[in-house]
Amino acid sequence: MHGELELIRLIAARAGMRGGVSVGIGDDAAVLDDGTVLALDMVVDGVHVSRATHSPADIGHTALAVNLSDVAAMGATPIAAMVGLGVPDDLSADDVDQMYRAMDALAGEYSMSVVGGDVSASPVLSLSVAICGRAGDGVRPVLRSGARSGDLLVVSGPLGASAAGLALLRDPSIGAGIAHAEALTQAHRRPIPLVDDGLHLAEAGASAMLDISDGLLLDADRMARASGLRAEIDLGAVPRAGGVDDVAAVVGMPSDLFAATGGEDYQLLAAMPPGTGLEPHVTVIGRMTDGAPGVSAQRNGVDVTPARLGWEHGGA
Amino acid sequence: MHGELELIRLIAARAGMRGGVSVGIGDDAAVLDDGTVLALDMVVDGVHVSRATHSPADIGHTALAVNLSDVAAMGATPIAAMVGLGVPDDLSADDVDQMYRAMDALAGEYSMSVVGGDVSASPVLSLSVAICGRAGDGVRPVLRSGARSGDLLVVSGPLGASAAGLALLRDPSIGAGIAHAEALTQAHRRPIPLVDDGLHLAEAGASAMLDISDGLLLDADRMARASGLRAEIDLGAVPRAGGVDDVAAVVGMPSDLFAATGGEDYQLLAAMPPGTGLEPHVTVIGRMTDGAPGVSAQRNGVDVTPARLGWEHGGA
Repeated sequence: MHGELELIRLIAARAGMRGGVSVGIGDDAAVLDDGTVLALDMVVDGVHVSRATHSPADIGHTALAVNLSDVAAMGATPIAAMVGLGVPDDLSADDVDQMYRAMDALAGEYSMSVVGGDVSASPVLSLSVAICGRAGDGVRPVLRSGARSGDLLVVSGPLGASAAGLALLRDPSIGAGIAHAEALTQAHRRPIPLVDDGLHLAEAGASAMLDISDGLLLDADRMARASGLRAEIDLGAVPRAGGVDDVAAVVGMPSDLFAATGGEDYQLLAAMPPGTGLEPHVTVIGRMTDGAPGVSAQRNGVDVTPARLGWEHGGA
Repeated sequence: MHGELELIRLIAARAGMRGGVSVGIGDDAAVLDDGTVLALDMVVDGVHVSRATHSPADIGHTALAVNLSDVAAMGATPIAAMVGLGVPDDLSADDVDQMYRAMDALAGEYSMSVVGGDVSASPVLSLSVAICGRAGDGVRPVLRSGARSGDLLVVSGPLGASAAGLALLRDPSIGAGIAHAEALTQAHRRPIPLVDDGLHLAEAGASAMLDISDGLLLDADRMARASGLRAEIDLGAVPRAGGVDDVAAVVGMPSDLFAATGGEDYQLLAAMPPGTGLEPHVTVIGRMTDGAPGVSAQRNGVDVTPARLGWEHGGA
């Protein structure tokens, strides 16, 4: 099934672009000629979230958050979202109420609206959220393909929290004695879309940007290939969330690789021209070079790029 | 399950409207302050379509068509669509290829683009299509709530074809000797969104408009209630597609009620101020009055409003 899904993704990404569209398939979002940014991301129970570990409110929050993150990664401001909700028999109206309240609360934090959508019976709980945003005045949406050789690679904050939180949720026995356990599980259940960071990085002149949904190395690889460049990541520079080192130790992974391959942190990865002024919480973790397109991860100058760069969703 | 789904629809329609949004939940589409029109409709196998009677291309076509129809019903022009595709194990890459080719072919007819979306494993084939459009210069999006007492109710073309086509697909033995059988099944499998008609009716001054997805009487009831008026429909004036009378006779329904309650024709219903010039294929079928909000259907001046006004989707 997994190979077939990859093929299906390629097919789905092949449609033609016609008038009114500046950037089509392949980025975090599509961009219309007037700067309108459009994205759609699905959250399916058992694939992206689990009703075993996520409350209905967590699921609603997450479904909107991952879409807000796509808009953030374009350096744009969200305006309105629509939800296509697939409702299984065992989901109650109260569950849905909690789900939509969580979405509306998150929407309120970003002064945007959930403006409608559709509801259908379905054998599985699924949310397809479509979102519409706009780039700021005088700022163009930032694509993943615009990086230039010599750009610095920066991340908007620490990584690994969501993967650590998922490990704790899957095996609660890990949690005993782990510092920040609650914050880690919360990071997994309630990701925070970094819209302000996206605007800051876009205004500061980011040449490329994306949100780290599937792991830093995998997403850096995507940016590098889209830009025809090599992303060189210094693992020692990658900031790790508090408690991540402890969880990595329990699951038997080097903590730097744990943080650099864990998914769903929704921090932003941006390529910045050298000399750009950046806010203090933004961390330089590597640079773009003219090497063979792709990513390399180095530890103390030695290449330690793993075979598995990150998480590929799509069902086991 | 059905009552619960209705409750869930109410919950999903309750979210708050914030800056940048002119029209939120409750119309065919949401409208942003700049005239951008947004809609999202789901097509789920076993609920809205059936893989038993629809080819993958039919399903792709239908999923985009129903969204194009929502944009048409606002009097707007479609620009870009995104697709959230839930892929079950038994759907092949070739099936998906046919599905996306059909979507892209339909998109091409309207000079718009499928610009991306998301693909996920799912136990059922589902497509959530989100669409973005714009109202024409100087024309405001037409809502379902704007009808005025005295407006004429018009439909853009004949009704009943899709319901008749569905009856033929479900029981092929009906088809023997039915004229237009092929055209009727095609109407069900490949609905045609009436974007040009929507623009024409909007420019002609429609005060309210929607697309007839769930049956003329049910959709007229919705327009009437949204406008605080009574829709009086003269069943004798409702145009019926060729072959509909024959199918209605076989299934034992009066053909006028068959046509007025059948779903998925995607003709447009508009409220037009009296004296408006209209294209010849547009038919006057009734008028808006100050009576109790809702719909009434008359045959030769006698009220024959049925208890069941149309189709309510959402799973049996």
